[in-house]
Amino acid sequence: MLILAPNSPITIGTIAAALGQSAPGDAAMVLTGVNSLVDATATEVSFLTSDQFLKQFAQTKAALVLVPQKVNLPPGAATPVLHVDDPELSLATVLGLFAPQIPRPDPGVDPSARISAQTRVPADARIGPHASIGARVKLGARCVIHPGVVIADDVTIGDDCEFFSNVVIRERNTVGHRVIINAGSIIGTDGFGYRWDGHQHVKVPQIGIVIIEDDVEIGSCSCVDRAKFGATVIGRGTKIDNLVQVGHNVKIGPFCIIVGQTGIAGSTTLGTGVVLGGAVSVRDHITIGDGAMAAARSAIHGDIPAKTVVSGMPALPHRQTLREQHAFRKLPELMTQMRKIQDRFGDAAKMLDQD
Amino acid sequence: MLILAPNSPITIGTIAAALGQSAPGDAAMVLTGVNSLVDATATEVSFLTSDQFLKQFAQTKAALVLVPQKVNLPPGAATPVLHVDDPELSLATVLGLFAPQIPRPDPGVDPSARISAQTRVPADARIGPHASIGARVKLGARCVIHPGVVIADDVTIGDDCEFFSNVVIRERNTVGHRVIINAGSIIGTDGFGYRWDGHQHVKVPQIGIVIIEDDVEIGSCSCVDRAKFGATVIGRGTKIDNLVQVGHNVKIGPFCIIVGQTGIAGSTTLGTGVVLGGAVSVRDHITIGDGAMAAARSAIHGDIPAKTVVSGMPALPHRQTLREQHAFRKLPELMTQMRKIQDRFGDAAKMLDQD
Amino acid sequence: MLILAPNSPITIGTIAAALGQSAPGDAAMVLTGVNSLVDATATEVSFLTSDQFLKQFAQTKAALVLVPQKVNLPPGAATPVLHVDDPELSLATVLGLFAPQIPRPDPGVDPSARISAQTRVPADARIGPHASIGARVKLGARCVIHPGVVIADDVTIGDDCEFFSNVVIRERNTVGHRVIINAGSIIGTDGFGYRWDGHQHVKVPQIGIVIIEDDVEIGSCSCVDRAKFGATVIGRGTKIDNLVQVGHNVKIGPFCIIVGQTGIAGSTTLGTGVVLGGAVSVRDHITIGDGAMAAARSAIHGDIPAKTVVSGMPALPHRQTLREQHAFRKLPELMTQMRKIQDRFGDAAKMLDQD
Repeated sequence: MLILAPNSPITIGTIAAALGQSAPGDAAMVLTGVNSLVDATATEVSFLTSDQFLKQFAQTKAALVLVPQKVNLPPGAATPVLHVDDPELSLATVLGLFAPQIPRPDPGVDPSARISAQTRVPADARIGPHASIGARVKLGARCVIHPGVVIADDVTIGDDCEFFSNVVIRERNTVGHRVIINAGSIIGTDGFGYRWDGHQHVKVPQIGIVIIEDDVEIGSCSCVDRAKFGATVIGRGTKIDNLVQVGHNVKIGPFCIIVGQTGIAGSTTLGTGVVLGGAVSVRDHITIGDGAMAAARSAIHGDIPAKTVVSGMPALPHRQTLREQHAFRKLPELMTQMRKIQDRFGDAAKMLDQD
Repeated sequence: MLILAPNSPITIGTIAAALGQSAPGDAAMVLTGVNSLVDATATEVSFLTSDQFLKQFAQTKAALVLVPQKVNLPPGAATPVLHVDDPELSLATVLGLFAPQIPRPDPGVDPSARISAQTRVPADARIGPHASIGARVKLGARCVIHPGVVIADDVTIGDDCEFFSNVVIRERNTVGHRVIINAGSIIGTDGFGYRWDGHQHVKVPQIGIVIIEDDVEIGSCSCVDRAKFGATVIGRGTKIDNLVQVGHNVKIGPFCIIVGQTGIAGSTTLGTGVVLGGAVSVRDHITIGDGAMAAARSAIHGDIPAKTVVSGMPALPHRQTLREQHAFRKLPELMTQMRKIQDRFGDAAKMLDQD
Repeated sequence: MLILAPNSPITIGTIAAALGQSAPGDAAMVLTGVNSLVDATATEVSFLTSDQFLKQFAQTKAALVLVPQKVNLPPGAATPVLHVDDPELSLATVLGLFAPQIPRPDPGVDPSARISAQTRVPADARIGPHASIGARVKLGARCVIHPGVVIADDVTIGDDCEFFSNVVIRERNTVGHRVIINAGSIIGTDGFGYRWDGHQHVKVPQIGIVIIEDDVEIGSCSCVDRAKFGATVIGRGTKIDNLVQVGHNVKIGPFCIIVGQTGIAGSTTLGTGVVLGGAVSVRDHITIGDGAMAAARSAIHGDIPAKTVVSGMPALPHRQTLREQHAFRKLPELMTQMRKIQDRFGDAAKMLDQD
């Protein structure tokens, strides 16, 4: 890993080194940022994702462009380039070089934070203003707790976690290592469970917990509910966007991607590497297999086999949805044809009757 | 109501007593928790909801199983059982026995909380760290205000309410008795109202309030907007899940169930006992009758009569939606048939012409 | 602009003056509020939006009614009226007269707020309890920062902004003048960007910012993500409702209306005056033209030309959606007809064969 001196300038040489290559053009040239091919200035890095953008490449002012191995550049292009396997992945490295430090609370505990006397705060923790940490909370090494975060009693948190402002972690939940929870998300609210007793909705106590495994990131204003009993689980390396609802007793496998405004109802299980596009709704008590993908706004009403791509409402294999939507587009025309046939058929039938 | 000594063990006898029955098997046997038939250990309670699960019942290790009266168990089953009318409802009672105490702020006012001098806090209140309570707030008996909650001026709150961390209650709203609002929900934001004046969207002042009646529970990150004038009302005993939007001047009747990510637009009225599944959208200025139900992801564009079950986008009576979806599934095939008929009809027409 | 003495009574004369007219009826009559024609008491103002409501007008007890110029009232109506061009717009003015003052923190900085020593707070600011303001934050004149708001380092805020409780503004973002952000919204969370490296989802650093222009209002629990690079932009005068997701690098033009629970995926561009109804989903990297409108629950998968009205999933021009939905309604009937034709055609074909 490349360690830069603080505030050292980023040059073409820095970037080439970070990508394990030798520098094209002037290695000492100082770069100021990252931009698209169209908007890049003469001191910025840009990138090309496919040969669709060769025209923009020809006109870019960028000082340096990341280009996929598979793209054939026109001969004689003057812009310095770095050939990479996956420009999006290399771009992540380059953005990391330019990324300003995220501001964090100072090391230690802000005097305005309230920590239970029954909780030990590691010396390397950063606990911001107005944070509240309950009793018997286990904090791993190097935790960063931003202002206004509330962690209730008996929560266990691994090393190198970062919780942004106003996150709430309810009691008894478990969070792994290197977990990021963005501002305003709520972990461990009671699952939504009631039972009608003839007079009112009786609350079903939700005595379970939430387990968030290592390397999970959760966006802002998302909710992960505690289990009725047992645990709601977010598998390691899974990434969840903003405004997502994860119901009680849901089990999300490792390395899933759950895009914004998606909702997963209670007791549903997702395998490994499932991708749910934005605003997908998933019903309760079903299973989505490993590597399955759902297009944005899919409404999933039943089990999805592994590696299947679904879309639509109700969600069906994507090709079927496309075929049906295509047919749907033709439906008014089909009805017109039907009327014509009925008219002509009427005539034909009359002719037959006259035979 | 069964009152247990703190930390007293829960036995088969305890559970039988709580359900008003005599103990099957060893009444003194100590139980450790609740689990599904498949996962239960030899010291856990489980439950069976229908005879679909008799095979799982036959293999369970559970120490005790709740069984509906209507299910006929195989003769000679060794597992101790309690016959109950509604195992889900009895399960709520059993979960309550095992439920750990929810951690709450200590009685009194945390020194870091800020309470207006014009507000009187009852001696039995629990006000947590960094809470802010404005002027002339009326707090009922035994209120529990978790860390970071903000209650603005002139709010009235009944007895035995619990507001979890970072809830915000804007000014002048009214909350009944035994109301639970979960972490991160916002009550009383201005309704979304603007009017174009030829140059800009002019904000329409929202001078009304929100009234939350007794025994309501609201999940996390849900929003109930204040009325343009008059009141937005959440009827008594209604339960609202996470990430729900309730627009200005909506009137929700008593005992409704509003599942996560549902949105109800302004001035719409819900009767008694309406159930809206997850991610339902309801348009403004319509009426949904008593006992109506909408399946998840319904998009409701017009009035729904009482006791009607709707689904789909646009929402239609559920049977009609199913019939149309069935037809939709057949649409590509229908188009193929149409082409064949057109072809053959062409031939037939030619034959007729040749007659 | 009409300036009322504090607590001065609002009379028919006050309202007439505010609308630039002379008072009908008893100018000195004191009014107590605004209500619908049906619910108004004898001391309340009401309004009529079209001649659909003439019957309610005939029976109202309201002391004063706002009536559109275009509506012909029945001769001899006794209720005092004010004729206005746009009663909804005039109603905004009238509601403003009755609007109670929004309670705000006292001028100055609450002792419990934490402000970085590197940030200068203007003398006319109002900073509430438990607010946290980071280093080098630029605050404009007359800012109102409600309890629990967190503003991270290097944020720039214009004049006359109001941020309600528990809003979070992440570092380096820019907010214009007269911007209102309602309770619980989160500005500047990292955009949702990862790239699979063969072993895990690598986080793509999000080094850009959010720019919120003048006169924007954002509802509660909405999320505007920071750009991957460059900026996510909310154009001046745009109004965003609750629980809305704005992805990284989205550019929303001026004067747009984005209704609750809508989501806009990354790098999409909205022109001027775009209206997105509730719970609309918009895919990434597309363009929606000036003045385009999308009905509630539209799922927008591709570019929308200016001034086009779309609806449905996938979103199509609204008339086409209606035509297709109409055809869809007829689909089961169409299938029945098809079977009849096939039967009769079979018979006809047989007859032909017999010829």
